[in-house]
Amino acid sequence: MTPNPAIRGIVETCINVSEMRRARQFYESLFGFEVMEHSDRFCAFRVGPGVLLLFTQGTSDQPMPVTGGVIPPHNTVGAAHFAFAVSREELEIWGRRLSERGIKVESEVVWTRGGRSLYFRDPDDNLVELVSPGIWANY
Amino acid sequence: MTPNPAIRGIVETCINVSEMRRARQFYESLFGFEVMEHSDRFCAFRVGPGVLLLFTQGTSDQPMPVTGGVIPPHNTVGAAHFAFAVSREELEIWGRRLSERGIKVESEVVWTRGGRSLYFRDPDDNLVELVSPGIWANY
Repeated sequence: MTPNPAIRGIVETCINVSEMRRARQFYESLFGFEVMEHSDRFCAFRVGPGVLLLFTQGTSDQPMPVTGGVIPPHNTVGAAHFAFAVSREELEIWGRRLSERGIKVESEVVWTRGGRSLYFRDPDDNLVELVSPGIWANY
Repeated sequence: MTPNPAIRGIVETCINVSEMRRARQFYESLFGFEVMEHSDRFCAFRVGPGVLLLFTQGTSDQPMPVTGGVIPPHNTVGAAHFAFAVSREELEIWGRRLSERGIKVESEVVWTRGGRSLYFRDPDDNLVELVSPGIWANY
């Protein structure tokens, strides 16, 4: 058997949104993310060393030919969930920033390892989490 | 206005699965991921510096009390998509490894920046991508 090389990390995390313009505006204006590439169909935000990909609902559920091949279909419906890494001090700042922008923090959790999470929603009800270190064995 | 601290990265990527036992077996045996925490409801795999979280369909759609607070509901239905980072050489090895295990590569893409992707499905039809550097401005 061919040995199993270790996966180095997760480079793309994808969510679906109903209105790309509204979703893009939300993520750009709140987080200041750089848009690396975009179309009506998708938007790729630079998030540290990784990428948050937004797909317009119903545009990725068919095979998508590109120059070098075909991207297979995928599509989810419902509230997705993902977590952004911030420091403990930055989490405090984000709490104030969300309040200033009128974004309701739906929940706060203090984890047994000492990490803290703030949860709130994007305009499509996706569950965004900001979390400081002290939650998992590797974070 | 409070200044906007930069998000450091994406630390948790979440997908939903119908049968946790089957899904966990797939990801553990194929990728050799370490299970950091698990229950009937979820499984947290260490993936480099990040976490892939599997949730059993229909168990995360209600608020979940934990010791330090409440995790808000989330749930998606349908084929999610995410990408694991591998080197160019490792991608070749993965191609052989998938073939040996009888996992069908649904598509291969060569990106204009030189990166390459292999796409295949997990047992719940989630679209798994293995991608080598040379796809985005930051990867």
